Amino acid sequence: MIDALRNSVAHVFVDHLDSPSLSDTDQHHLSRVLRLRDGESVTASDGRGGWRACEWADGQLRVVGDIVRVPAPTQRIGVAFAPVKGDRNDWSVQKLTEIGMDDIVLLAPTRHSVVRWSDADKQLRKLSVVAREAAMQSRRVWLPAVSGLVSLADALVMPGAAVADPSGTAWFASMGTEHSATLTAPTVVIVGPEGGFDIDEIPASVPRVSLGDTILRAETATLVAATLLASASRAKGAS
Amino acid sequence: MIDALRNSVAHVFVDHLDSPSLSDTDQHHLSRVLRLRDGESVTASDGRGGWRACEWADGQLRVVGDIVRVPAPTQRIGVAFAPVKGDRNDWSVQKLTEIGMDDIVLLAPTRHSVVRWSDADKQLRKLSVVAREAAMQSRRVWLPAVSGLVSLADALVMPGAAVADPSGTAWFASMGTEHSATLTAPTVVIVGPEGGFDIDEIPASVPRVSLGDTILRAETATLVAATLLASASRAKGAS
Repeated sequence: MIDALRNSVAHVFVDHLDSPSLSDTDQHHLSRVLRLRDGESVTASDGRGGWRACEWADGQLRVVGDIVRVPAPTQRIGVAFAPVKGDRNDWSVQKLTEIGMDDIVLLAPTRHSVVRWSDADKQLRKLSVVAREAAMQSRRVWLPAVSGLVSLADALVMPGAAVADPSGTAWFASMGTEHSATLTAPTVVIVGPEGGFDIDEIPASVPRVSLGDTILRAETATLVAATLLASASRAKGAS
Repeated sequence: MIDALRNSVAHVFVDHLDSPSLSDTDQHHLSRVLRLRDGESVTASDGRGGWRACEWADGQLRVVGDIVRVPAPTQRIGVAFAPVKGDRNDWSVQKLTEIGMDDIVLLAPTRHSVVRWSDADKQLRKLSVVAREAAMQSRRVWLPAVSGLVSLADALVMPGAAVADPSGTAWFASMGTEHSATLTAPTVVIVGPEGGFDIDEIPASVPRVSLGDTILRAETATLVAATLLASASRAKGAS
């Protein structure tokens, strides 16, 4: 990551990088919560790969650097998961954004889903706000796409989709070995609800990947899947 | 994992496997919260590698299988981290236990620590309870060791200790390649407080490992470190 991004006192998303202006919420956050002082560094991004260095000046952003464009990821990675109870969805979206997921997909109810949202649009808007805030915290210049509710059938046909399954292949653990080279790398991991998927909910043709030898709560599985996907993606970039 | 453990309706820790008896808390949990019915399967473990199959009978455990002994891990893995604010330590310990850490180490305050516990013993006892509950949930037969507060100096000399550092080696991402073979595998990852460590807090001789390309909150870093350690340990076991 570029040092200017890592070291800025704050990172914000703006509509226009030509003349970056803060939303009321962000203005309040930077001035009242972070209490920025004149001259402190702020980076502004459009969330679509563009960003530029600014500094805090009289409660607003003053541009101090040119617009930089970071290319879109060559291979998007993501996690699709069934909503869980309470505020743990916020938590999952926050962590998935930090870990670097490009796609965060909320699944429509499946057979064993406990949570069935009657206000899915509102929930999704809220989760998009959570993702935006986490992206500010982790200095992302590409905002993740939060989408849903996506049916399991549609998720299963996403390119690179694999279902998290304790009896699946240990693809992540065998990464880099000859064995793994014969398997298609998963790029979207689908995590089921606490009750899991029934065998007949998942066609035999869909790859199944194991996330480890332990039993994980649904929201932990989501996190572990994201970490393994990000690590695999990084390893591929390094090789 | 053994199917009897994975498929039991509940998993509990008991003092004596010869004649397993439930604590009042567990008895209440199984009878009132999980509402077990007679004949449902329960596995009981001593938390030191021993376990046996039981079934629910008149509000207690009835032994139905012999005692099984699972060997101790040949290489323990763990994470050491600085306590953070609020209930996020509970959350971290729960997740670290699920992911399979053998050692969970709470660090004594370092230079940039925000949290300085005045009641560390009480906090650690509480976290041990959290670990025990998470180990029940994830069907572990070896309880993790929750310890602390350990000074940074003592943590740094633990065998296999490495400090999480964005500028560290990408050991986890290069695992399985020739490059990684020349480096010592980390088995304990030390995660600093939100403010990080100063350069002079960590001797140059201590390995530094990168957890990825993104900026992570401290508690997210703890999780990511655990996931990468568990995955590396599993890969080693498979090779």
